Amino acid sequence: MQNRTLAAQLAAEPTGSIVVLDGWIHRRRMLAHVSFLVLRDRSGMARVVVKEPPARAVLDGLGEESVVRVTGTVHANPAAPAGVEVIDPVIVPLGEPAATPPLELWRPNVSGGLASRLDHAPVALRHPRAQHSWRIAATSMRGFRETLTEAGFVEITTPKIVGTATESGSNVFEMDYFGQPGFLAQSPQFFKQMMVGAHERVFEVGPVFRAEPHDTVRHLAQYTSLDVEFGFIQDHRDVIAQLRDVLAGMIRSIATYAAASVEALEVELPSVPGVIPRVHFADALRIVGAAPDEPDLEPAHERALSQWALAEFGSEFLAVEGYPMRKRPFYTHPQPDDPRWSNSFDLLFRGLELTTGGQRLHRRSDYRTALAAAGEREEDFAAYLSAFEHGMPPHGGFAIGLERWVARLLRVTNVREVTLFPRDLHRLTP
Amino acid sequence: MQNRTLAAQLAAEPTGSIVVLDGWIHRRRMLAHVSFLVLRDRSGMARVVVKEPPARAVLDGLGEESVVRVTGTVHANPAAPAGVEVIDPVIVPLGEPAATPPLELWRPNVSGGLASRLDHAPVALRHPRAQHSWRIAATSMRGFRETLTEAGFVEITTPKIVGTATESGSNVFEMDYFGQPGFLAQSPQFFKQMMVGAHERVFEVGPVFRAEPHDTVRHLAQYTSLDVEFGFIQDHRDVIAQLRDVLAGMIRSIATYAAASVEALEVELPSVPGVIPRVHFADALRIVGAAPDEPDLEPAHERALSQWALAEFGSEFLAVEGYPMRKRPFYTHPQPDDPRWSNSFDLLFRGLELTTGGQRLHRRSDYRTALAAAGEREEDFAAYLSAFEHGMPPHGGFAIGLERWVARLLRVTNVREVTLFPRDLHRLTP
Repeated sequence: MQNRTLAAQLAAEPTGSIVVLDGWIHRRRMLAHVSFLVLRDRSGMARVVVKEPPARAVLDGLGEESVVRVTGTVHANPAAPAGVEVIDPVIVPLGEPAATPPLELWRPNVSGGLASRLDHAPVALRHPRAQHSWRIAATSMRGFRETLTEAGFVEITTPKIVGTATESGSNVFEMDYFGQPGFLAQSPQFFKQMMVGAHERVFEVGPVFRAEPHDTVRHLAQYTSLDVEFGFIQDHRDVIAQLRDVLAGMIRSIATYAAASVEALEVELPSVPGVIPRVHFADALRIVGAAPDEPDLEPAHERALSQWALAEFGSEFLAVEGYPMRKRPFYTHPQPDDPRWSNSFDLLFRGLELTTGGQRLHRRSDYRTALAAAGEREEDFAAYLSAFEHGMPPHGGFAIGLERWVARLLRVTNVREVTLFPRDLHRLTP
Repeated sequence: MQNRTLAAQLAAEPTGSIVVLDGWIHRRRMLAHVSFLVLRDRSGMARVVVKEPPARAVLDGLGEESVVRVTGTVHANPAAPAGVEVIDPVIVPLGEPAATPPLELWRPNVSGGLASRLDHAPVALRHPRAQHSWRIAATSMRGFRETLTEAGFVEITTPKIVGTATESGSNVFEMDYFGQPGFLAQSPQFFKQMMVGAHERVFEVGPVFRAEPHDTVRHLAQYTSLDVEFGFIQDHRDVIAQLRDVLAGMIRSIATYAAASVEALEVELPSVPGVIPRVHFADALRIVGAAPDEPDLEPAHERALSQWALAEFGSEFLAVEGYPMRKRPFYTHPQPDDPRWSNSFDLLFRGLELTTGGQRLHRRSDYRTALAAAGEREEDFAAYLSAFEHGMPPHGGFAIGLERWVARLLRVTNVREVTLFPRDLHRLTP
């Protein structure tokens, strides 16, 4: 049997040659004496001109989204997409005729609101724009891994069911684990730190779970966390430098491997400065005119700081370092010269927090103090603490939420727009 | 400050030059007039010769696993590992002295039985053999992804909390999802099939969950599933051919990027034949002398078949195709000429089942029949079925259990040996 030709390869075939195309009927237009079939496959679209009555009859019986094999002749036509179309086709269904889709996939923007698109995700995700959007996500993950692997990091996989809540007791999903209480991991934080003891430099791409009780455009009950942790750092600025390289690698990967998607969605890829500009939290409060005892940045502050960084440094990225210790988790390393502040940071990108990271404590005795101050019991962290008992280097890391990253890149407000099958307060299917 | 030199880079440094090494005290030997320090970092080991009393005193106060910075002079010595050692060192601790480890990491094989090593995983995973073992796993994932990406597959991430049990109602973890029952995904099967409708060719590397109530050496409550699904196939033999390429790519990746680990663990990497030999289930029963109405292969049968394939074809891999439909899940495509058999297969590797795969149903009407026969209600699969309602190509796929794959490669019986923090009936920590 003849090999399949992809739609995107059609223009390279000589006029007059016979090709076999497999794909979905993206759109039919049935005119009086001719029908046009737009065939969609993973590479794009091909136009098929159907004049012969038998082929017209077959097409007439197959609704949009039916899967077909088209055998036809390549024909140059400057009016067709990429200057080429297929004529004299034989159309053979590869399954049953498809029922009319709940959304009109052939429109430039798929019909229906977000709720409808999420309800009909198995169909809505076929839309070319949805495909492009996901390719940006997939190539982001690729760039993340390739950059880190190149720098000597080792990929790890860690448990998603844990015996104690990772980050805090709230917003955690509880479950029955063979008769004892188990929790879904809110982050791989403890595991990635422990693995620094083994491989020094580790990363993980995996799901994390938050029982987020609020319905917001930024939060999901499950999201994909791009986690990094590494040892033998001076302080959190080494972490920011590594984050800088990772972001640059992700953007390079998108530009290289998803160029067609960047073009189709008109994505403005940011350029990452060689050194990401930094501002101390205390200075950030001054810049935005907030009270000096504010414990956190409000959304309006984050937007103002991003604008400031763009004006001041021409950078769409800004690292806010030194967040107050009292707002950071117990494993956060304090700023050595002033323990009110921390060696941790948030990375702002286009007005929103994209990443949190920093230096962690690495001395067993510091954990003793920090857990006591947080009112936590050491026995709940026994395995974790054993890593520090037996020698850990100064280390730090960060985590990027994949969906939030893609949403910012695509300038989309709701992370659900860029998640394949989002999970939230109201949504457990599809 | 001078840049850090890794242990593995030491031999490339000129004799007499000053180097800075960071790492863990792997082993100390304190003799009367000289001490030897073996320093471990992510690249390997370096020998440091400590003669000066101040440095001897520092070393004396630091137990194994303490983290130090060593600044010293490179010195050629044919008796040292890689022909080089560090002399005249200044040793500075980078943290507190480590408590005596619960396991002796400096032995060629870490001390302690499996249970003890799992209890002390944060320390035990530092052992060089454990590091090498995990590097085989990490480079396997790398090869899996690279091979598929090269072949036009798109990586996906799918929900791990689902509204209905994926594969069957048994062995599923149940949880409270904002007041309604949720389940941990036993596989991404339905999602990867639905995504074939969008991207044609997809893969996922992610955790899957089985509430396995039995304590076996082959099963975990969470494992890493390497999942593949793709459309426009003829039948399951296209799936076997793709699996062949993926396995070859994984092995190539290990050989290329984890060569030191292959050597250290004396791993015999299998060669994958250009076409994996196949045997039909009915013939397989005959070959092993089992009754022709046996519904499944017993472990002894799998071992005998692997021996047969090695003798007959010189292959460590054998695909057993045509498994009885009554033992396969409802979405399995029957063998067209005899619907007692299926277009599915198991891949045997070194006497054990490594992978299950096959062609799936793609017609909406076939799902209607299959679900009715399985006694399932269509409304429980509404979103999944909508994909088939609206046009799906003939498709198929497979899943490789990462831990099982690495265990077979390393000829290790218990999958817990090659899992970072295994989860089972008895183990929810560390």
